[in-house]
Amino acid sequence: MHGGKRAAFVAVGSELLRADRLDTNSLLATRLLASCGYTFVEKRCVEDNLSAIGTAIRELLGRTELVVVSGGLGPTADDVTREAVSHEFGLELVRVAALEEALAARYQRLGRSLPEIARRMADVISGAEILPNPQGTAPGQLLATGNGLVLLLPGVPSEFETILRTHLLPRWRGQGGVLLRTLHLAGVYESQVEERVAPLYARFGRERVTILAARGRVDLLLQASGPQAAAELAEMEEAFLAVVGEDVFGYDEDTLPAAVLAHLRGRGWRVAVAESCTGGALASALVGVPGASDAFLGGVIAYDNCLKQQLLAVPAEVLERCGAVSGEVAEAMARGAQRLGAECGVGITGIAGPAGGSEEKPVGTVHMAVATPQLLRQAHLRFPGDRAMVRELAVNFALDLLRRAVEVP
Amino acid sequence: MHGGKRAAFVAVGSELLRADRLDTNSLLATRLLASCGYTFVEKRCVEDNLSAIGTAIRELLGRTELVVVSGGLGPTADDVTREAVSHEFGLELVRVAALEEALAARYQRLGRSLPEIARRMADVISGAEILPNPQGTAPGQLLATGNGLVLLLPGVPSEFETILRTHLLPRWRGQGGVLLRTLHLAGVYESQVEERVAPLYARFGRERVTILAARGRVDLLLQASGPQAAAELAEMEEAFLAVVGEDVFGYDEDTLPAAVLAHLRGRGWRVAVAESCTGGALASALVGVPGASDAFLGGVIAYDNCLKQQLLAVPAEVLERCGAVSGEVAEAMARGAQRLGAECGVGITGIAGPAGGSEEKPVGTVHMAVATPQLLRQAHLRFPGDRAMVRELAVNFALDLLRRAVEVP
Repeated sequence: MHGGKRAAFVAVGSELLRADRLDTNSLLATRLLASCGYTFVEKRCVEDNLSAIGTAIRELLGRTELVVVSGGLGPTADDVTREAVSHEFGLELVRVAALEEALAARYQRLGRSLPEIARRMADVISGAEILPNPQGTAPGQLLATGNGLVLLLPGVPSEFETILRTHLLPRWRGQGGVLLRTLHLAGVYESQVEERVAPLYARFGRERVTILAARGRVDLLLQASGPQAAAELAEMEEAFLAVVGEDVFGYDEDTLPAAVLAHLRGRGWRVAVAESCTGGALASALVGVPGASDAFLGGVIAYDNCLKQQLLAVPAEVLERCGAVSGEVAEAMARGAQRLGAECGVGITGIAGPAGGSEEKPVGTVHMAVATPQLLRQAHLRFPGDRAMVRELAVNFALDLLRRAVEVP
Repeated sequence: MHGGKRAAFVAVGSELLRADRLDTNSLLATRLLASCGYTFVEKRCVEDNLSAIGTAIRELLGRTELVVVSGGLGPTADDVTREAVSHEFGLELVRVAALEEALAARYQRLGRSLPEIARRMADVISGAEILPNPQGTAPGQLLATGNGLVLLLPGVPSEFETILRTHLLPRWRGQGGVLLRTLHLAGVYESQVEERVAPLYARFGRERVTILAARGRVDLLLQASGPQAAAELAEMEEAFLAVVGEDVFGYDEDTLPAAVLAHLRGRGWRVAVAESCTGGALASALVGVPGASDAFLGGVIAYDNCLKQQLLAVPAEVLERCGAVSGEVAEAMARGAQRLGAECGVGITGIAGPAGGSEEKPVGTVHMAVATPQLLRQAHLRFPGDRAMVRELAVNFALDLLRRAVEVP
């Protein structure tokens, strides 16, 4: 993915150096600025102090064309990013009256007066461009130095993203940037995807395709650059869809649970779940999507076998004969979920570990089934990994089994 | 938390600079090495190349006493951390015969021959101490330079942690390190904890107490150092327990779901859940704990009101009169969960947003109830934040309501 312009990231904040916090703005910057041709070659977290921030920017500008700095623009005494840049480059801070008035008005609306120390949010580095912040108080600032660009953005992720999207992407994308298209796949392993798309590398170039795997989902990142970028990207997408199309559940910002709910909604159907080893995680993934209620009814967490019988009418004889972890029980659970009052039902039963495995049914064995008004499908899987991984894989494979069953072809 | 020895972290790996990956070894190092008196003042991710790695180590050694380097010790051509350190400090790499033999034996057990390039895992920087890696192939290396210590560890988290715990913590903890004790609290807000512990600051020192809040949980980190550290820490713990003890659900590595299940087990009880807005997330948190089945029965995701009536016997009249989001319905759901066959039941109903709020019941309104053989308790909460945050707060507050109801006093 190299070959474009080099960028670096600095997350400012002593709290990001503790044992419980990670900077995530760098992921956002990496993803969004890739479409402008920037590749990040270094990331740092530094403390809230003048010399740490100044030194990091100086060192990184020597190696890259753009340094993105996140955080340290707020109203408290800890927030010293503006001052650090001013000091490092010998540029004055200029208090901008229009910004100061907007700040005072904002504080007044919240019933508070504007403290002197918070007025620093109206200070702009001499020569920097002001990047308005519609969601917060401190604006971003973009400074062109002899050595490259320094971009200062607030650390609050929503403000960070909004300023980047509103003020910089439209401008920078024009400049010979790289266009990206992500195909999201599920219900398939990375090695299978790799094998099927490999013949396309010769045609489009290996370096323009990235495969990312994440517990039951695989992303294919396609990229194109230059004057024909849009047309080339469309051609790539078509060629890749021809070989992996049936595994694709969405594009770019799409998520698997939202895609499943959209298909159900399109059919006018609802789904109910019956979960054993996943213990509510499948339902929780669906409920995580705003507005899930029009396509999600609810369900049963039949962790104990007695609930499989009692609430899902799984016959005791089937439990006895086939065992709780079996295709027969998964099917009966899916049918039982359907009978709760939904057009579709999903059943999952498996062994998440660490205990409970046997030679015949080792840890990672999962049976799942989907019932719709038109069909009944089941899958028998053997997942690798620990308890958390087996459960996450099971949720994603079950969502995808449902997606394939309800998708309008 | 400052005042000890300064440390820095370098995560090596181009994959850590992509949009989908974060280094997490630094969190582990920060937590474990705090007990040895080290405070991390900077973290970096750098690409797999000689000059990026060498430059980072050189720059950081100028500012800290210990630089921990994670990754780049494996068998592929990308793995060049050893070479980078050798080059940076002008120290030869020495191939150690005993390590090479152990490598060859390990590859042979896997039915493979040892490729030439993988033999580099037996290369040790001249003067460095070898830190054996019982879980993997490449050992760690500890190099004392005139300017401070450089610690090289494999990037695989389990290997990284094992070498740190086995070879370094026992040795470094002795050297006037800092002892840490974490009290985990739930069902309480950070500001309430702050208010109640503030009077203790004068006695023990403000800098020895850190409060961390995380969506329904609050951690109190206590620290002590010097020859009396253990006795002082015990005294601090006692004093803090006297003011916040009833909110404490566990210590150090304890988690809230595991603590709840342990209390239930102690009583010989099981719990069943009835979830609406949390949609299975409460059950999923409990099922995430290995061996949950002896204290967790299962439950119902009553997302649609019809399931509240059908599976939990919530009276239609109560739903009509009080609304689905009400204390009465939460109680009826808890009782309904109990009737599934468990000694205890939990009911949760609320408005996670973004839609569905009203003036009387705004987004974030959540009612929850716990029924045990001895009592029935309920709580009415108004949580801040978006859909994901409201749901996570609801899960943690409900787990804690259950914890308080089943704890043996």
